[in-house]
Amino acid sequence: MSLVNPHGGGSLKPLLLSGAALEAEQKRAAGLPKLQVSSRESGDIIMLGIGGFTPLDGFMTHSDWQGVCDGMKMANGLFWPIPVTLSTDDEGIKVGDDVALADGETGEILATMSVTEKYGIDKAHECMEVYKTTDMEHPGVKMVMAQGKYNLAGPIKVLSTGGFKEKYGEQFMTPAETRAKFEQMGWKRVAAFQTRNPMHRSHEYLAKIAIETMDGVLIHSLLGNLKPGDIPAEVRSEAIEVLTKNYFAPNTTIQAGYPLDMRYAGPREALLHALFRQNYGCSHLIVGRDHAGVGDFYGPFDAQKIFDEIPKDALETKNMNIDWTFWCKKCGGMASQRTCPHTKDDRILLSGTKVRSMLSEGQDLPVEFSRPEVAKVLQKYYASLSAEQNVKVELKGHSAA
Amino acid sequence: MSLVNPHGGGSLKPLLLSGAALEAEQKRAAGLPKLQVSSRESGDIIMLGIGGFTPLDGFMTHSDWQGVCDGMKMANGLFWPIPVTLSTDDEGIKVGDDVALADGETGEILATMSVTEKYGIDKAHECMEVYKTTDMEHPGVKMVMAQGKYNLAGPIKVLSTGGFKEKYGEQFMTPAETRAKFEQMGWKRVAAFQTRNPMHRSHEYLAKIAIETMDGVLIHSLLGNLKPGDIPAEVRSEAIEVLTKNYFAPNTTIQAGYPLDMRYAGPREALLHALFRQNYGCSHLIVGRDHAGVGDFYGPFDAQKIFDEIPKDALETKNMNIDWTFWCKKCGGMASQRTCPHTKDDRILLSGTKVRSMLSEGQDLPVEFSRPEVAKVLQKYYASLSAEQNVKVELKGHSAA
Repeated sequence: MSLVNPHGGGSLKPLLLSGAALEAEQKRAAGLPKLQVSSRESGDIIMLGIGGFTPLDGFMTHSDWQGVCDGMKMANGLFWPIPVTLSTDDEGIKVGDDVALADGETGEILATMSVTEKYGIDKAHECMEVYKTTDMEHPGVKMVMAQGKYNLAGPIKVLSTGGFKEKYGEQFMTPAETRAKFEQMGWKRVAAFQTRNPMHRSHEYLAKIAIETMDGVLIHSLLGNLKPGDIPAEVRSEAIEVLTKNYFAPNTTIQAGYPLDMRYAGPREALLHALFRQNYGCSHLIVGRDHAGVGDFYGPFDAQKIFDEIPKDALETKNMNIDWTFWCKKCGGMASQRTCPHTKDDRILLSGTKVRSMLSEGQDLPVEFSRPEVAKVLQKYYASLSAEQNVKVELKGHSAA
Repeated sequence: MSLVNPHGGGSLKPLLLSGAALEAEQKRAAGLPKLQVSSRESGDIIMLGIGGFTPLDGFMTHSDWQGVCDGMKMANGLFWPIPVTLSTDDEGIKVGDDVALADGETGEILATMSVTEKYGIDKAHECMEVYKTTDMEHPGVKMVMAQGKYNLAGPIKVLSTGGFKEKYGEQFMTPAETRAKFEQMGWKRVAAFQTRNPMHRSHEYLAKIAIETMDGVLIHSLLGNLKPGDIPAEVRSEAIEVLTKNYFAPNTTIQAGYPLDMRYAGPREALLHALFRQNYGCSHLIVGRDHAGVGDFYGPFDAQKIFDEIPKDALETKNMNIDWTFWCKKCGGMASQRTCPHTKDDRILLSGTKVRSMLSEGQDLPVEFSRPEVAKVLQKYYASLSAEQNVKVELKGHSAA
């Protein structure tokens, strides 16, 4: 038995250049017309660069876009649940042009692209198919609707990982690196725990269920952009660090991060999460309650159910569904709705808002809800925010993924 | 997806007759020479009767015996880990004879058999291969060494389930019945929890790990003979009943029993446990610490490791390995050596002897070790034993399986 194959069944396909090829392309890029890309597009470029979106070789064509929206299938038949597209309002760019893709915030040139197709899309259609809504309150919908008039398709050459390595150090692991690490640890069955929040005991429990029956867990944090109010990656990372150090057995977890922005597409994003975890070498993705959801746009277990609706061979990485988890006083332990026969009143449930207000006021969280070491890290973070920030920042639920 | 196939890939093969065929064979049996069988052999006959040993059609031949001992493979190539043989000292029985097999204790005729082969075996060889020892302190070895001089092979027709149905009622489910029940519940992924002892919290935890990620758990008790000092099936069943009623969610567990005697063959018996669970329709067998072991004859995880040594297609039912489980004070919860980084001193560990002496004296067990409702059932049982019995009975470890 060995690790799962990269998506598509071939080798990893990192589009990041190195050495002389990189230098040459950097020189060429300097002379190309520059296209500023959005934060989400930057994340996608870097993900393509490190091979996380294997086997894509760039941004999707119109028929890929259509197939992915309507049937989660690219023109070549490959399973793909969410469009990976690049947009612009630039009327001047033409098919056949080469362009340099520059990060909209830093201006750094992240990639070059050969434009093979320029096309318009029905944005509302993408939203309805992928996000199941066109409500502009949905942050993913808002992002799609804010895209440029045209999408550009074409292969890209990636020139940079956009500072993630510099900022996050060892935690920014490429799929090749996580795979090498798993092999070195002798891991075959590895569950990815997707997170964009600090881990409280409910999340610890999810990870530990996986560890009880598998070789290990990759605690895999989103390092890209979140909605306002979510805990920044550095703080989250520190909180996870104290948690694993104090409450997990050695050699059962690896903490790492990946460069994407959240899309909040719920079920479809859960599939994308499984897809790129396959590239990272994970055999399973833990899918809990409201995975990758936002607000009330998705049913709490829609992201689990969708895995039953895709073709059996669509992904090698399988979902590991776990129900809503909590401490139950009558059980005297962590449990889920699958294992606890008691009632809501017996369970220690705190809303994200409540957790945040307690932490902001320097209050301790119940030890059944959060490890004291973790709470301390978060208290420190909230204390560092100005009173104004503390009021502004809206922390919507301490959900995991 | 559907339930796992019966072992061998065909249909269930229960050898129990019914209706007119049963009546006719009962009449015929009354006129046949009677062979008294041991308790273990009775259990095997009944297991053959209900289809638990599918696809066997009777007791094994010499070449089956040899293949099973040496390579866990019958003459026809079928995977089988422990010989299922019938022995006698009777010099009179000849190949070609038909005999009636009568329970050694009750005298009830359980089956008829057409003797197709009569052969001697090297008992010490069987012990070394199957039990990894010839130490007469080993109860399985003792059983083999006490067998008759000859083994008899041949197909059997089963006439009775030996009172199990009458004694255990609904709990004595046949493989066809558990399969029908699973289908009715909509279960596909079902873990069998093998037990011959009451369930304390460590066992509850094992079962709940399975429930968190599967459709349900079959709590499957051995109803045949145990070593002296083990808790009788009725008491165990009552203890499991109060546990599931108070601490498991509805529709996640089924309690049932099977008629075999323990062989205490450790790793090889774990394989047999998985094999017949496949016939019962279970996709997984929970394999904990020292599964089916006795004393110090096997390494604590030998029964897990052996699953890696058999051919990949030997069994459809897979092992679900779980490490040694306990309550850890620092974790503040149930954990295993895989999930707890703390030390022995932080864990609530009680030896079987200690548990028994506490219960016999009417003491409460720590709630982190055993549910009060379960402890109460056991206290009542020990109180019902005479003082002398309480001293005599040697309860070696409250291990699960």
